[in-house]
Amino acid sequence: MTAAVFAVEATDGAARTGTVATARGTFSTPCFMPVGTRGAVRHLDSSDLEALGVEVVLANTYHLMLRPGAATVAGLGGIHGFARWSGHVLTDSGGYQIYSLDPQVDDDGATFASVYDGSRCRLTPADAVEQQALIGADIAMVLDVCPSAVAERPVVQEAVRRTALWARRGRDAFLAHRDAPQRQCQFGIVQGGVDTGLRRESAERTVEIGFDGYAVGGLSVGEERPPMLEALEACTPLLPGDSPRYFMGLGDPVGIVESVARGIDMFDCVLPTRLGRHGTVLSDEGRYNLAAARHANSDEPLDPSFPDSPAGRWPRGYLRHLLSTREPTAARLITLHNLAWLLRFMDQVRAAVRTGTLDDLRAAVALKWA
Amino acid sequence: MTAAVFAVEATDGAARTGTVATARGTFSTPCFMPVGTRGAVRHLDSSDLEALGVEVVLANTYHLMLRPGAATVAGLGGIHGFARWSGHVLTDSGGYQIYSLDPQVDDDGATFASVYDGSRCRLTPADAVEQQALIGADIAMVLDVCPSAVAERPVVQEAVRRTALWARRGRDAFLAHRDAPQRQCQFGIVQGGVDTGLRRESAERTVEIGFDGYAVGGLSVGEERPPMLEALEACTPLLPGDSPRYFMGLGDPVGIVESVARGIDMFDCVLPTRLGRHGTVLSDEGRYNLAAARHANSDEPLDPSFPDSPAGRWPRGYLRHLLSTREPTAARLITLHNLAWLLRFMDQVRAAVRTGTLDDLRAAVALKWA
Repeated sequence: MTAAVFAVEATDGAARTGTVATARGTFSTPCFMPVGTRGAVRHLDSSDLEALGVEVVLANTYHLMLRPGAATVAGLGGIHGFARWSGHVLTDSGGYQIYSLDPQVDDDGATFASVYDGSRCRLTPADAVEQQALIGADIAMVLDVCPSAVAERPVVQEAVRRTALWARRGRDAFLAHRDAPQRQCQFGIVQGGVDTGLRRESAERTVEIGFDGYAVGGLSVGEERPPMLEALEACTPLLPGDSPRYFMGLGDPVGIVESVARGIDMFDCVLPTRLGRHGTVLSDEGRYNLAAARHANSDEPLDPSFPDSPAGRWPRGYLRHLLSTREPTAARLITLHNLAWLLRFMDQVRAAVRTGTLDDLRAAVALKWA
Repeated sequence: MTAAVFAVEATDGAARTGTVATARGTFSTPCFMPVGTRGAVRHLDSSDLEALGVEVVLANTYHLMLRPGAATVAGLGGIHGFARWSGHVLTDSGGYQIYSLDPQVDDDGATFASVYDGSRCRLTPADAVEQQALIGADIAMVLDVCPSAVAERPVVQEAVRRTALWARRGRDAFLAHRDAPQRQCQFGIVQGGVDTGLRRESAERTVEIGFDGYAVGGLSVGEERPPMLEALEACTPLLPGDSPRYFMGLGDPVGIVESVARGIDMFDCVLPTRLGRHGTVLSDEGRYNLAAARHANSDEPLDPSFPDSPAGRWPRGYLRHLLSTREPTAARLITLHNLAWLLRFMDQVRAAVRTGTLDDLRAAVALKWA
């Protein structure tokens, strides 16, 4: 069995920088993982991801199991052969998507409708393991119960209980799988909403089962930042220091540095790509809307302080024109810029941890991105 | 004044291969010019065009004069600075778009509605010169009157008369322009529908005025191939052999080789890019629809006999999946493939003319693309 091996290179308070080693190879942390829901980051291909220096991409079990089907992906060599991508792939379990579909959930699993044709689908913790083994992710997530951001305490409590039940079943299914343990790592997921007591309980129950890494789920779903960080602080100290920690669905600069300062190593988010498609640009001066009229005649690049941006060749006036006439080239180039900007930001985060200057970076980020 | 200089390197019957030299540089003919209506080939950028080996791209005066406005393009260095493209640009005059907008046309110009906001716009032959000078195309097209494919003879006759009138005014405006003659070439346009007599008349009247090159307009707009080729044969012998000849709006392999055999040097068409966006793939075995279920599990590239395709890395099963889930990456990769395939086809056309084997190529193309 190949577990993820997390080697810490340097720490700065609770923050760490290091390397995660899997059966596929290694990647550096803290890292940001772009989201390629259906096997491609929107507008990009695997050669673009290589050029960006992406080390891990996230794909979506729910979407891939429905279209084209996990068996089709397996038949084409798994997600790596399918998408011709030799870097790491992490697949979520499908849980998060399912909970937006008003599913029927019982202790054995969830029944929900396909977004493609409305057909009824069933997913159990063991099914999630099997689907992700077929897809061939390097890191598979256990099936969890992700309550709504505004759920009452009893609902969150029940989600924590069922998440722990499913974590046990998912872990057992993974360890008993014919080949998954040789090829994949499996991460557990801590739930508990913004309730610090439930967060602690969920962390303890997940760690008790034992995974290759630990995710914090169900945060950054609409709550304010202070309760989010409190919930994070409640559970991260309980997660083993020698395993990677992953904050699911967070990707804004302030959120990233504040989470890294609390011991988080991995992030994913649709933010940089979704914002990019809609014309919002990440830059060293904060984010701005390229559609604003003041950019119409601008010969400046998207971020003058980032000359190596993959979109650095083109003037704002041109990119704004393509954006306002809905030319897909605009969405592509701004997506490339935003991802490159965020990956460069992660370089700065890792460097800050290495040099013990994370607090300076946090202060600088708070100034620009408050 | 810098005119286009056309140097013929080899001929095969009426077909020629050679080089067009402009103030910007040179490009090889017969050539295919991808269409970048609003200043970008859909889904692509100028670095993609460089990688494809594109030498000339077509942009659209009508669209650029409305959005972002020709003055904005001029302010950012003209279309080359705007789109950061150092290859050749040819702009159409706007006439073709205008005639799809039910314009009011008189001997002085056309009045039409903007597709963007419905506002009334006016374009005269001199306006078309000025707009294209601001946009900074290397090759500007004269404003013409392009009748419908099903127009009656009197309508076509009137279009030929007015096209000649506008050609004279457009040429005079161009030659009197403050800097266009130093930077640009100007091409005249032959109209006449499928009436061989009107085609001859239009060719004679256009040549009499004298342009740097000559286009055949108003064909490949829905008519059958035999009358199209007859109309072409009626006018091409009347166009000067030492000037480039351009078939507007044609881009299918049979049409290309048959037109090259009749002395055409330049082509543009939305076909390879529009087909690509909708999942139709050009290949050495003809074209096919990637959405077909038989490709779902295929590990083959789009065209196994074209391993250097820019999409050659990915299996059909993956590209079909992205296509059927409407991921824009599919449109981009198939667009890249189709353009690369067609540009490689033009390499084959030029080689056939050089080696005197165009008839063999015509026969082979007719077999695959009938």
